[in-house]
Amino acid sequence: MEWVSVDKIADHAHELVELRGWVANRRSSGKIRFLQLRDGRGVIQCVVLKNQVSPEVFELADKIPYESSVVVRGEVREDPRSPIGYEIGVRDLIVVSEAGEYPISKKDHGVGFLMDHRHLWLRSSKQHALMRIRSVLTRSAQRFFDEQGFVCIEAPILTPTACEGTTSLFRVEYFDRTAYLTQSGQLYGEAAAMSLGRIYVYGPTFRAEKSKTRRHLTEFWMIEPEMAFWELPETMDLAEGLVCRVVGDVLDKCAAELRVMERDTEPLERVVSPFPRITYSKAVEIIRRRGTPIQWGDDFGADEEAVLTEEFDKPFFVTHYPADIKAFYMKRDETDPRIALAVDLLAPEGYGEIIGGGRREESLELLEKRIREHNLDREPLEWYLDLRRYGSVPHSGFGLGIERAIAWIAGIRHVRETIAFPRLMDRLHP
Amino acid sequence: MEWVSVDKIADHAHELVELRGWVANRRSSGKIRFLQLRDGRGVIQCVVLKNQVSPEVFELADKIPYESSVVVRGEVREDPRSPIGYEIGVRDLIVVSEAGEYPISKKDHGVGFLMDHRHLWLRSSKQHALMRIRSVLTRSAQRFFDEQGFVCIEAPILTPTACEGTTSLFRVEYFDRTAYLTQSGQLYGEAAAMSLGRIYVYGPTFRAEKSKTRRHLTEFWMIEPEMAFWELPETMDLAEGLVCRVVGDVLDKCAAELRVMERDTEPLERVVSPFPRITYSKAVEIIRRRGTPIQWGDDFGADEEAVLTEEFDKPFFVTHYPADIKAFYMKRDETDPRIALAVDLLAPEGYGEIIGGGRREESLELLEKRIREHNLDREPLEWYLDLRRYGSVPHSGFGLGIERAIAWIAGIRHVRETIAFPRLMDRLHP
Repeated sequence: MEWVSVDKIADHAHELVELRGWVANRRSSGKIRFLQLRDGRGVIQCVVLKNQVSPEVFELADKIPYESSVVVRGEVREDPRSPIGYEIGVRDLIVVSEAGEYPISKKDHGVGFLMDHRHLWLRSSKQHALMRIRSVLTRSAQRFFDEQGFVCIEAPILTPTACEGTTSLFRVEYFDRTAYLTQSGQLYGEAAAMSLGRIYVYGPTFRAEKSKTRRHLTEFWMIEPEMAFWELPETMDLAEGLVCRVVGDVLDKCAAELRVMERDTEPLERVVSPFPRITYSKAVEIIRRRGTPIQWGDDFGADEEAVLTEEFDKPFFVTHYPADIKAFYMKRDETDPRIALAVDLLAPEGYGEIIGGGRREESLELLEKRIREHNLDREPLEWYLDLRRYGSVPHSGFGLGIERAIAWIAGIRHVRETIAFPRLMDRLHP
Repeated sequence: MEWVSVDKIADHAHELVELRGWVANRRSSGKIRFLQLRDGRGVIQCVVLKNQVSPEVFELADKIPYESSVVVRGEVREDPRSPIGYEIGVRDLIVVSEAGEYPISKKDHGVGFLMDHRHLWLRSSKQHALMRIRSVLTRSAQRFFDEQGFVCIEAPILTPTACEGTTSLFRVEYFDRTAYLTQSGQLYGEAAAMSLGRIYVYGPTFRAEKSKTRRHLTEFWMIEPEMAFWELPETMDLAEGLVCRVVGDVLDKCAAELRVMERDTEPLERVVSPFPRITYSKAVEIIRRRGTPIQWGDDFGADEEAVLTEEFDKPFFVTHYPADIKAFYMKRDETDPRIALAVDLLAPEGYGEIIGGGRREESLELLEKRIREHNLDREPLEWYLDLRRYGSVPHSGFGLGIERAIAWIAGIRHVRETIAFPRLMDRLHP
């Protein structure tokens, strides 16, 4: 008898098949027992009729503990009431491993308890759906760049120095010296772009921030393209294309998962080009008009971003930020040195920033000046300055925060459920 | 005038185009100047004739420093002597940024010097080729799993405990406690496989090994599939399929890069199914027969593996290792408890192990026993034991070391050039 997975069940209608998985749920009704079998690819109802199985199997179906692993053999039957169109008429049921009393019950557990049991919580339908959405999104983002000839580069995780300021760094004992966990692959991505033209870095990044917010993890993943000879407008086009692509692919491939998440997909259907593009100054005006006080020069917090997103029904760009609130490598506007050629992309529905990027300063002299102004240690950045000494070119790039993008697309408030094993200030386990 | 990249030059034959890149080389011959323009996508010869450009441009073409960034405008001309079939008849040449004296000259630099200038060394033709091969290989490996419905999972980098023994761990200051950099995503991958059936972990892993060998980096990438309900033979089939796929894709898409590496592709063409499968005991016999002393029970070092690879002209599996030299989670052979159901895949031509994996112990009782035998701290592994308490299933997986696979396929001796910014015991910079 062939072992088939639930997602391929339609190819085996009316056949006898074997399924392998876990008992997600069960109920009894007279001479019928219903088992919900979860096999990682889907969930299917298995119907056990008293007169079609041995007395042992019938009894087993009545008392097998939740999350026990089992092998089910039976007939694939069409069932119009099933969300997947099929159910299994059970002929045999074999226990692989009987589960102890499962810690996660149907009652409302607190997030702390669920996170302590993250290794089991991942089996729950919403967490399962989130992992599938994540995988589709990250695969889609990489393919988007692959198809355009970008070269995938791994930036180092262990670095000798800070990329964006010296606070919020994790220190690592590296033999007899100290290393730091990377905060962004960008500087390395710039070096690679001078070799390969267009590259993207994909990997984990780290911020030892003591804040506990719904938008921060200490360990999070970014995809960071960097393009030699690219200016800001085409960089925004690229970011727009990326976001349209990943949203489109998730809508296309994760319809069932978005239903599990109870995500209203109507706002996602609106994610098509062109995205609005406004300046920081215009954004300040909108935020003030909507009654939130803010001064020109202030950075946007989550609150200001949320207010701003009420103005738009799709993702939108904010450009031309005050240089003072942006990183040292940002190029200034040649017509107004108070302004950095920075660009953020904000997701609608209150989510806010999911992409940050901009033009990089290509002048050696100006970059040296910025390093002084930002009180950064120059010596560990000498190699980065070399990129301006030997064939410097205009170049641009951005970083998409994977977890924030998933939180928005899946419609959940906190980023902590968007990754298999989240790391937060007070969460390092399991 | 349209900006085109060198890899698309054939689409613009006889057109006037603009190219943007760096001066990789130049030479003069009477009234002709030749510039080799490198744009990250390819290298093309640009021919400057005295009577076709301004005197300033002609003079510039004679003295522009290597690695200066330039814009070239000119006509795309067919040239049968060119490796890409085309050259540029230059009309105009504009300097974007004149380079200082480039540190990397044509003379033989030591590896230490080159690694100190890794951010520039990446522009050299072999390093450029290696980065392209790497990108094709990692993209190919991920797609192989994506196409078979595997879900991509990110395992945590910051972990509370060790996966395979407590030596060679990097310690991280994690707020007021200590974290460790992951040595493998496997244990987390197992948890995810119990939720999603078939998963793969892709990410960086770390070993604080004090050894300096050609096969070790302190930071290296692995792709680690894990499959619920899979036994050893089908796991080996999967590994075989993966290796055939990535070698095939590199041969297919990186012919030019393999030529740059001066890689004899004949041994790579032989990488087709089936791969030989031998036991550890048989391997010991072969190593002895070839004159290298080894006792049953000894682990293979690089030397023993190299000897063994002389026996085969394609990758081959070694299975059924002594349990004592394998990790605590390895399942024992039910007919001989001295044996672990472990499998390694060794690359030919002296390269040795590129894949390690096997069946995982699914019995709670036996796993607890192994943890005691290996003197591991049990408390931080309680969550992992939960996977055996709640619906344990037979399962298997393996890890492919990306850098070792690239070193073999590209035909280089040392893994340090297979990643953009390698980390070794004495190398944390740039």
